[in-house]
Amino acid sequence: MIRKYTFGTGIRTDAVTVPIPSSEGPVPYLEGNADHTQYRYPLSDADAVYGLGEAVRGINKRGWRYRSFCRDEANHLETTEAMYGAHNFLVVKGEQTFGLFFDYPGSIVYDVGCEKYDRMTITLPEPDYDLYVIDGASAREIIRQFRHMIGRSYIPPRWAFGYGQSRWGYKTAEDIREVIRMFDQNEMPLDSIYLDIDYMERYKDFTVDGAAFPDMEGLVKECGEQGIHLVPIIDAGIRIEKGYPVYEEGVAGGFFCKDAEGKDFIGAVWPGKVHFPDVLNREAAEWFGSRYAALLSLGIDGFWNDMNEPSIFYTEKRLEKTLRGISRYAGRELSLQEFWDILGSVSRLGGNEEDYENMYHNIDGEMVRHDKVHNLYGSYLTRAAAEFFRKWDPDRRFLLFSRASCIGMHRYGGVWMGDNKSWWSHILLNLQMLPSLNMCGFLFTGADIGGYGEDATEDLVLRWMELGIFTPLMRNHSALDTRRQEPYQFGRKDAFRRITELRYALLPYLYSEYVKAAVNDDMLFVPLGLEYEGDPRAAQAEDQMLVGESIMIAPVYRQNAQGRYVYLPERMKLVLFRGASEYKETMLEKGDHYIPIAPDEVAVFIRQGHILPLAPGGRRVSEVDCRALTLLVCEGSEDARYTLYWDDGYETDVENPDHSTVLSVRAEQQPGQER
Amino acid sequence: MIRKYTFGTGIRTDAVTVPIPSSEGPVPYLEGNADHTQYRYPLSDADAVYGLGEAVRGINKRGWRYRSFCRDEANHLETTEAMYGAHNFLVVKGEQTFGLFFDYPGSIVYDVGCEKYDRMTITLPEPDYDLYVIDGASAREIIRQFRHMIGRSYIPPRWAFGYGQSRWGYKTAEDIREVIRMFDQNEMPLDSIYLDIDYMERYKDFTVDGAAFPDMEGLVKECGEQGIHLVPIIDAGIRIEKGYPVYEEGVAGGFFCKDAEGKDFIGAVWPGKVHFPDVLNREAAEWFGSRYAALLSLGIDGFWNDMNEPSIFYTEKRLEKTLRGISRYAGRELSLQEFWDILGSVSRLGGNEEDYENMYHNIDGEMVRHDKVHNLYGSYLTRAAAEFFRKWDPDRRFLLFSRASCIGMHRYGGVWMGDNKSWWSHILLNLQMLPSLNMCGFLFTGADIGGYGEDATEDLVLRWMELGIFTPLMRNHSALDTRRQEPYQFGRKDAFRRITELRYALLPYLYSEYVKAAVNDDMLFVPLGLEYEGDPRAAQAEDQMLVGESIMIAPVYRQNAQGRYVYLPERMKLVLFRGASEYKETMLEKGDHYIPIAPDEVAVFIRQGHILPLAPGGRRVSEVDCRALTLLVCEGSEDARYTLYWDDGYETDVENPDHSTVLSVRAEQQPGQER
Repeated sequence: MIRKYTFGTGIRTDAVTVPIPSSEGPVPYLEGNADHTQYRYPLSDADAVYGLGEAVRGINKRGWRYRSFCRDEANHLETTEAMYGAHNFLVVKGEQTFGLFFDYPGSIVYDVGCEKYDRMTITLPEPDYDLYVIDGASAREIIRQFRHMIGRSYIPPRWAFGYGQSRWGYKTAEDIREVIRMFDQNEMPLDSIYLDIDYMERYKDFTVDGAAFPDMEGLVKECGEQGIHLVPIIDAGIRIEKGYPVYEEGVAGGFFCKDAEGKDFIGAVWPGKVHFPDVLNREAAEWFGSRYAALLSLGIDGFWNDMNEPSIFYTEKRLEKTLRGISRYAGRELSLQEFWDILGSVSRLGGNEEDYENMYHNIDGEMVRHDKVHNLYGSYLTRAAAEFFRKWDPDRRFLLFSRASCIGMHRYGGVWMGDNKSWWSHILLNLQMLPSLNMCGFLFTGADIGGYGEDATEDLVLRWMELGIFTPLMRNHSALDTRRQEPYQFGRKDAFRRITELRYALLPYLYSEYVKAAVNDDMLFVPLGLEYEGDPRAAQAEDQMLVGESIMIAPVYRQNAQGRYVYLPERMKLVLFRGASEYKETMLEKGDHYIPIAPDEVAVFIRQGHILPLAPGGRRVSEVDCRALTLLVCEGSEDARYTLYWDDGYETDVENPDHSTVLSVRAEQQPGQER
Repeated sequence: MIRKYTFGTGIRTDAVTVPIPSSEGPVPYLEGNADHTQYRYPLSDADAVYGLGEAVRGINKRGWRYRSFCRDEANHLETTEAMYGAHNFLVVKGEQTFGLFFDYPGSIVYDVGCEKYDRMTITLPEPDYDLYVIDGASAREIIRQFRHMIGRSYIPPRWAFGYGQSRWGYKTAEDIREVIRMFDQNEMPLDSIYLDIDYMERYKDFTVDGAAFPDMEGLVKECGEQGIHLVPIIDAGIRIEKGYPVYEEGVAGGFFCKDAEGKDFIGAVWPGKVHFPDVLNREAAEWFGSRYAALLSLGIDGFWNDMNEPSIFYTEKRLEKTLRGISRYAGRELSLQEFWDILGSVSRLGGNEEDYENMYHNIDGEMVRHDKVHNLYGSYLTRAAAEFFRKWDPDRRFLLFSRASCIGMHRYGGVWMGDNKSWWSHILLNLQMLPSLNMCGFLFTGADIGGYGEDATEDLVLRWMELGIFTPLMRNHSALDTRRQEPYQFGRKDAFRRITELRYALLPYLYSEYVKAAVNDDMLFVPLGLEYEGDPRAAQAEDQMLVGESIMIAPVYRQNAQGRYVYLPERMKLVLFRGASEYKETMLEKGDHYIPIAPDEVAVFIRQGHILPLAPGGRRVSEVDCRALTLLVCEGSEDARYTLYWDDGYETDVENPDHSTVLSVRAEQQPGQER
């Protein structure tokens, strides 16, 4: 049951697609203050708190404070409060089990047992939001209700499940060809290459640098013939440059965000000074979305939207003021305090939230200050693109994912987990964010494998790949000036090849589970605590996870580890993979196990009564053959059945029953029988 | 066997006290380059690398690059290369097992399987050092040989093993009294309160702020009467202030480091502009050490030396140049590159290593550029203090520890692990650094419990305490403007009290093991891999550790965890403590175990054939009574014996056999018999 409590009449997030009538009376479970800006809930020792989407720390969010406010924050430390996404859904599971969703586009702070271990406090800046309180038979069921209310999750084309190679620093068409060549030479699977900001002319959206990429259309075609998709980045800011059509159109149409004086707001990001398209304005959003045509018409069918928190390196006004302030110190004796003041003023130039208070949207004719609706920006920008893609080709799925997001955007695209680091702890964070994001509707997601910032080592990238083969978005991405980390850069090429091939062998399963999760409003990555409800040990499992209905994974995320402990909440079959066709099966009893897992091995645990179908692999998603599946099962699960979903990889009619086939081991063992 | 290879004739670290004659011929094990500035060693899959003292990552250092160059670096991330200490001893254990010590006071980079997983590369800037290559029957034995060569580790007075409370921000005598009052009110053990820079007059070393601490001598006495020691901080920089005696004496005596022009080098740190005492100069060091008399004469008997890398916030020259550079940009249009340049120039103001190239020491009349001998600075500063303490009272041990260090300083004082953070990952890092530091001679060490930077939560501090009760230095310390984290700030006061009392109950054991480790050149914290040599699983244990001869610990360092996995390399007895006198004993077989450990419990594992003596506890170290010990043993270990070391807590004659008593369980069970 979902109850909705409405406070104020301000702007909502448009997350909810199945309207719920407002309830009267006090909000259940929570103790609210008089002006409806704060709620408290006493946490008992056994309570766990799931959700909040993109956030640091564990699957159980208890023990820290989190802030919903999209931020360009590349240091995902334990104490980081706000990340790129703002996801206001959580489930308390314990003495009482219930879900909460705050439909509000501004900043919210969740203190989940941080200030006091036995208290959750949720604080909003103003009483102007809808609060949904969800009851259900279980946490999982509450999540399903919520997901149903917010509408079906985005489903990408199948090729987007292939391995993607990315790096900030592929500067020319020749660089792209070289990457493909190296993958081919090493017989490593590859489906897409991502173009970071390098491909643009002076970082101008919807342009191509003609010197570095003299024939982008030809290159797209050339790659396409090899089965490789090019996926360009689109940034939020539009460079201020006379004669640049997007800029000129935006100014002429009044499509840019305004400042307090009604002039087009100016920020500085990669292109230098920019205006931000006012994607919260219907007309401007439509216009911005339509600009993607410039690249779609070159044959491109996938995009990633970046910098759309929006990130602002600085605003001219603040920079001017800061530099003027600093100039006053030059040539004279400074106190330590004055020195700190200088450092402080410089450090406050970038990502200064006060800048958002000088930025305005035109929403249905009303000027709305940006900070009040901040979390919608990246979402609406991505939605603008998605809505245009539907016009461009309504019968085709496009790849689209975003850095900033809020709930609602899950219907239009995926998210990547932002600018992480080449840290072992970020492998675990990658794992732990998956279910939280799934709960909030984001099924298409993954982290930058190998880490975006800082230097990666071979063993880190290999272990990270061993998790990455299970995430819908499987992309190796790294920043300029960090160590190169394409799998062919390392010594153990064979291990990288075999692990990537395993992804392709798992694709029929992963793709089926993905589409089923989307269609059934379910999670793809399920914490053990949400599946094995009566098992207190399962609730503690922070580094293992169910992936779909049939398997559990338990990645190794510690350097130099040759194995790890795994808790089996039921009898399972361990399949220790060294590649798509090389694996060892062992039945294991419910309970605790230490599993040796060599650096080039992946442990998969198959659940009793379930089937893991395995394809022969391939070097492109298009090569994955569903007609020759091996079905892996536990001993004693010979009656198991599995519903395989397989379409043409692009079509939008995902509920067409023709796409589903029921597999069973017996059928497989008796060829000639109908499956 | 230790072989020494000498290159060049430059300054050494004075780490070695047992001289070794130089060998001729090629350096064994390593492949060196022609000019003796780089060594390589091929790492086999089974090789582990131990050592390097204060450094990030695991006990096994394999998989990253580390730099020996003392740095004021408060972000102990996975990718941090240099920390406060510079410790050039490591042991390769695997196909071949050997130790390496580079006696060199400048920067060294250790690539331990980072660039290539199967290669270690060690790079020095110049061929001017002694390299010691150590062979032995085992890694442990190699470590003992090394430790013997570098001389006996520092032993603090016994009270320094008590619980210490610290915080940057105890600003007045009244603040100190309030802390003591709160500990007393809550019946929490306490032996010392640390004074951070707040106590000084304008951050001037060897002064006391008369307004905030109107009668320091009286306060020291007042605290002393309650059994509490006050432990003031001493920083490296001496404030430039006319009339300040230390400044005036330093200038007059020529005791400060010089710049390239021969003037006293100027840096800015907490006091504002400072000169740095030239502690590498014998006379200057003696003078600096003698200044501690100002505080010793107030009754103070413990110090911590900070900022002695030396940390430099900025130098005037660089600041001037930077501000002048920035001023040029004011009032005009900036490119993004110019913006980055401004940010870069400001970020390079602090901790800029180029500043060290303009700083000089007078070593026996020769002007030596600081960067060449950088790692000696903090060590020699601390040594200067220690040598003066010996003059002040040769028969008494004083508490002394330092932030910066290099091997050699271990004879004069301990180290704390520097400015860490309130991160769960830093509990594990705390554990993992212990054996590495022990190997390098640093036995008296510990991390800032609860974390120095950022906000701590109650559960974090409690779990961290549960490790901290085993570290010789047990100090809760936090930074200004972070959340208060004294144990009495939290709800579960009873748990904090019981855990701290357990420390006092363990003191007879911890103190005995500490002194024995010092006397026998042994480690106090021993990785399982160094004790159970034939056991590959023991070699993998990165989050458990032997503490002394009798016990293994396995702290919980994950938020919300109610237990953890533990590997038992032999049959052991689990003692699950809830306090000094409340515990549950269970025999466990060799192998893997999941151990439930509630948030207020500490798991200790007693080894077969060994005794863990347990005192009744107490609220001061001076109250700990060794006459009423409970002896815990495994079943079947009734013949075990334990050598208890107990002196008056101050005396220097630690080898006096009267301080040792052999305990046995049988004796205890038959009262009246002589022990």
